[in-house]
Amino acid sequence: MRALVLDTAPMVRDDYTEPRPGAGETLIRVRMAGICGTDLELVRGYMDYRGVPGHEFVGEVVGADSVAAGKRVVGEINAACGKCDFCRAGLGRHCPNRTVLGILGRDGAFAEYLTLPDTNLVNLPDSIPDELAVFVEPMAAAYEIFEQLHLPRNQDILVLGDGRLGAIVGLVLWAEGYNPIIGGHHADKLGLLAALNLRTELEPHLEPGFDTIVDCTGNSTGFNRALELVRPRGRIILKSTTVVPAELNLATVVINEITIIGSRCGRFAPAVEAIASGKVDPRPLISAMYPLDAALAALEAAADKTNFKVLLKIES
Amino acid sequence: MRALVLDTAPMVRDDYTEPRPGAGETLIRVRMAGICGTDLELVRGYMDYRGVPGHEFVGEVVGADSVAAGKRVVGEINAACGKCDFCRAGLGRHCPNRTVLGILGRDGAFAEYLTLPDTNLVNLPDSIPDELAVFVEPMAAAYEIFEQLHLPRNQDILVLGDGRLGAIVGLVLWAEGYNPIIGGHHADKLGLLAALNLRTELEPHLEPGFDTIVDCTGNSTGFNRALELVRPRGRIILKSTTVVPAELNLATVVINEITIIGSRCGRFAPAVEAIASGKVDPRPLISAMYPLDAALAALEAAADKTNFKVLLKIES
Repeated sequence: MRALVLDTAPMVRDDYTEPRPGAGETLIRVRMAGICGTDLELVRGYMDYRGVPGHEFVGEVVGADSVAAGKRVVGEINAACGKCDFCRAGLGRHCPNRTVLGILGRDGAFAEYLTLPDTNLVNLPDSIPDELAVFVEPMAAAYEIFEQLHLPRNQDILVLGDGRLGAIVGLVLWAEGYNPIIGGHHADKLGLLAALNLRTELEPHLEPGFDTIVDCTGNSTGFNRALELVRPRGRIILKSTTVVPAELNLATVVINEITIIGSRCGRFAPAVEAIASGKVDPRPLISAMYPLDAALAALEAAADKTNFKVLLKIES
Repeated sequence: MRALVLDTAPMVRDDYTEPRPGAGETLIRVRMAGICGTDLELVRGYMDYRGVPGHEFVGEVVGADSVAAGKRVVGEINAACGKCDFCRAGLGRHCPNRTVLGILGRDGAFAEYLTLPDTNLVNLPDSIPDELAVFVEPMAAAYEIFEQLHLPRNQDILVLGDGRLGAIVGLVLWAEGYNPIIGGHHADKLGLLAALNLRTELEPHLEPGFDTIVDCTGNSTGFNRALELVRPRGRIILKSTTVVPAELNLATVVINEITIIGSRCGRFAPAVEAIASGKVDPRPLISAMYPLDAALAALEAAADKTNFKVLLKIES
């Protein structure tokens, strides 16, 4: 099949072996996929990943003998063992034996086909077009914040970073009744976010004192900036993974009694519901759509800081 | 007066100017003081502190015209403005205008006299001897954990670090119905802690999977070790400040959704109560007692990793 493959260098190939579903797994034909910051990190060497990247997707079930054949689905990206303590506690996302679609031990969505456990799949109502469904995964990551902690409505919240993740977190917070400020370096992108009702500010103009900061900068200097901007006893929610270890001043964390909360993937249900109800519509964030054959150009566009979301349309 | 003074180098002087209490402040004659890791950091240059260090003390009120004259007291170390948002919220410990005894803008307890706001002082019952009262401040820092978060009794807790702070945190957790493991590098000190009913383990033998880790190592490598040992969705409570910025792998914090909680000074009341009731008796941790004249030798003894707590007995 055709696939973007990370090996010594990323390359689009048309001879990549099609994945075969294991017991309890489903073969999915990918229809559309989104490029996220983690994919760009993987291309740069993060986690020494070899294989097909991509974990934001919408696809359709393949298999003549399946009652679900042809159904459009999205899929949670952590394939868990189902047997360990974490799985039994409903936290398969932290299963130590898990594979992760396009990130760890399982080929991902920048290909014609992928496999996932049946239990990871979530059916899509016809009312949700592919261009919306492809945002379910990053939106679920934004909704994860509410699963992890109680965020009072009157909190003074800063979303640090005006990239695709910061924008999605901002839209989700706004949809859920918060009024965050999005802080970033790109006036054009902040302008687009302002047109979507979000409060925005250029990062150097931000004043300290935020109750909660969601760090979506995707780089390690973002965290230290968040430490400057959060109030004593405030919280920093870390949403983006970075390859480079950060030089971090732990003394500030202790003296100001800051709480730092690592936050990753979330359950899909709240995100699908928010999209289906029209509460969140991130389509204005789509900067470009590329065919799979042009995946390398798509990666380049996604790495361009003036863009938000770059999608791959995958036709068989 | 006599005092240990940090200037270009630490020095005991007998001509240091006696502090004069401002409005609403009390002059205290220091009877006994404890040396903590922060003091050693200040000696090494932390916060560019100049003046008298020391913030763990027991003393007596001076002043012929005070009804409190002669009363033995301990004192909370943050002298707050009383007017800002933090002070109004009962969080004077985070007042941005505060001075901090022996740490920031206010001469400390390694001297014959000190001053503190009247409202910082806590009377001691006669039943608590000086050798116990001098532990109120670090014990209050241990009790601060309970003010910041709910810690279920069945948590698998590791106290990382077998120094004075780790020992006190361990004793307080044990007194409050927890059964922490103290992990450290010093078999002798772990032996003494085991004799005080605490579970102990040499640090390299610790296995990952702890629900909560209290980092009392006082160094930046301790934090990265805690990250290895905490379970996904677990918590790391940072109790010690360090001068050197840590190289920190933020990706692990995000992927495993770790919560990190900076934790500093606490209210004195719970600590005084725990000592008065006999629930916690940290006196076995006293390794040595020095007169103020020998403060430099005392600092050296406190820096010796084979010792727990080193005290200064201050006689006028």
